[in-house]
Amino acid sequence: MKLPAVLDSQFIQKTFLLAKKGQAFTSPNPLVGALIVKDNKIIAGGYHKRCGLAHAEIEAIHKTKQKHLCGSTLYVNLEPCSHFGRTPPCVDQIIKNKIKRVVISTLDPNPTVKGKSVRKLKKAGIKVDVGLLRDEARKLNEVFFKNMKYKMPFVVVKVAQSLDGKIATVKGLSKWITTAKSRKLVLSLRDKYDSVLVGANTFIKDNPHLNGLRKIPYKIVISSQLNLPPSHYLFKTNPHKLIIFSSYKNRNKLDNIPKAVKLIFLKETKGELPLRNILKILYKLGIMSVFIEGGSDTLGRFFKRKLIDKAYFFISPKIIGGKSALTSVGAKGFTSPGISPYLDKIEIKKIGEDILIEGYLRY
Amino acid sequence: MKLPAVLDSQFIQKTFLLAKKGQAFTSPNPLVGALIVKDNKIIAGGYHKRCGLAHAEIEAIHKTKQKHLCGSTLYVNLEPCSHFGRTPPCVDQIIKNKIKRVVISTLDPNPTVKGKSVRKLKKAGIKVDVGLLRDEARKLNEVFFKNMKYKMPFVVVKVAQSLDGKIATVKGLSKWITTAKSRKLVLSLRDKYDSVLVGANTFIKDNPHLNGLRKIPYKIVISSQLNLPPSHYLFKTNPHKLIIFSSYKNRNKLDNIPKAVKLIFLKETKGELPLRNILKILYKLGIMSVFIEGGSDTLGRFFKRKLIDKAYFFISPKIIGGKSALTSVGAKGFTSPGISPYLDKIEIKKIGEDILIEGYLRY
Repeated sequence: MKLPAVLDSQFIQKTFLLAKKGQAFTSPNPLVGALIVKDNKIIAGGYHKRCGLAHAEIEAIHKTKQKHLCGSTLYVNLEPCSHFGRTPPCVDQIIKNKIKRVVISTLDPNPTVKGKSVRKLKKAGIKVDVGLLRDEARKLNEVFFKNMKYKMPFVVVKVAQSLDGKIATVKGLSKWITTAKSRKLVLSLRDKYDSVLVGANTFIKDNPHLNGLRKIPYKIVISSQLNLPPSHYLFKTNPHKLIIFSSYKNRNKLDNIPKAVKLIFLKETKGELPLRNILKILYKLGIMSVFIEGGSDTLGRFFKRKLIDKAYFFISPKIIGGKSALTSVGAKGFTSPGISPYLDKIEIKKIGEDILIEGYLRY
Repeated sequence: MKLPAVLDSQFIQKTFLLAKKGQAFTSPNPLVGALIVKDNKIIAGGYHKRCGLAHAEIEAIHKTKQKHLCGSTLYVNLEPCSHFGRTPPCVDQIIKNKIKRVVISTLDPNPTVKGKSVRKLKKAGIKVDVGLLRDEARKLNEVFFKNMKYKMPFVVVKVAQSLDGKIATVKGLSKWITTAKSRKLVLSLRDKYDSVLVGANTFIKDNPHLNGLRKIPYKIVISSQLNLPPSHYLFKTNPHKLIIFSSYKNRNKLDNIPKAVKLIFLKETKGELPLRNILKILYKLGIMSVFIEGGSDTLGRFFKRKLIDKAYFFISPKIIGGKSALTSVGAKGFTSPGISPYLDKIEIKKIGEDILIEGYLRY
């Protein structure tokens, strides 16, 4: 027979797997999975499928089709809500259904509601355990945690470079440095985030689609000059998904831009569009996460401004060489190794021939 | 009870471990370990300690202190010699000592002697098995195999770079990108090779020692201009270990160079010293392996000429950034990703915070 603590862990882990099923579609809501267990047996599970639809806890409760759930335990990766949002509070349903115990992996990161539901459940005589596999639960909702704590989007970069840090040869050729397998994985990463961002050079030169495997994210282009070719894909397909940031001085250069495209003009500081402001504006537009795919100068500027939370480096075993070949992280750079940011909590994976190094930025 | 084949493997693996004890000092000879086994018990082991001293097989035979070794098996990672070199042929001693069976991991790579000893042993009525763990045995002596096959030194590069492929910041600062742990490992790598090579820029700017942990390798500097500061370490300490290649046009610029330093003047082709020639000359001087430590331009030129056999990339998790920061592999580079060389048989290790990627070049 398994110890209760081991069972608790296993059930919480199952809520993580359930929660992940909602990936790509719950934003701005977090990923949540819930499990109802009675006599150590799972009687129902649910997950939050899409923003506006039922919360995971309610999904699970409804699936049991029982009048009440006396003696059962609810497992959930995130503290249930106690406020009216798009849906009524989950806490009330948990109490009403006479659930005996609630096991929560992590509290709500929003400081104004954090712990409120736990107190309400306890007040109703329900046993509540909090904190099991908390780190994993926070990682699962790292976007939501950043959003709640800083009111800013979670910012991720992808780099696809040669072993010696190049993203193009001295002749400017970049197709292909990493393998098809890595590039497919990038498509599925786009599914995880609300938007994909590129600089004007990448937009002009690569004419990219920037779609995910299962969804069409917002596409964000930063273009000081607003010199973007009107025949490019992002103007032609789903232009309502395109957001362009440009300099205030171009506010009358709208001739070639389809009306569906969102154009935002900002004042430049020292000749550059203000990146932190851009992120703040995106957050206000409901874009909770930004996946930056380049190029060299754009990545370099975001790193320099210390705005990046997480990075995926796809490293091909190729050696491209060349003093003037385009480097993966360009712009002005950091002046000494001692003050350069670094990747922490590194995970290394082999993706076919390539090596994927992912981690979190520390400044 | 273990199967004979398993025991054979284990004994051959032990010869590898014995052989490695000679590392740093056997060159131009290979690393060899030998084991004498009777009734499945090891009765003696030996290894080749240093060029000029006894071969591993003779070491092992002497250690047994027995008059003859009837019924015993000799395990050895490389085919024993059958010719008079600095020492008499091992094969004669094996026959004379009435060894019953010889297990050899790999044949001698030298085409003029390959298989000769096996035939001689068999002719004397000794059972000979060849090929067990052959790939490992070849890797153990990869320097020797390259030497015998191509009459050229084995060429290895070390790169110590940031995650984004920089070896210095935009301000030229390079201390330190990788950690002390990685830098210590580099010292022990120098022990594996006969010489360490750097370009003039690295010599001038870093004023390096280039010593190993346990030995002082030859130091090779490539300097077209011969503008090397005479107060630098390599001129002051062990100048007889320093070899400088320079342009023929500098053949009278000898004022500041100590006499103990070996100076070799070569004709430049298209303004560059001929790297393949340099390697050939080093081989003739008895330098069987070259460990290239930079800088950017020197590495780039060796890669471009397809002269590198093996590479160690020490990658710090730092992101240094900067369009003009020094890249790890510079010079002219390859023009398209499709024709760029790549690392094969990659091994990935964590060295403290750093990541070490090592592999073999394919062109």
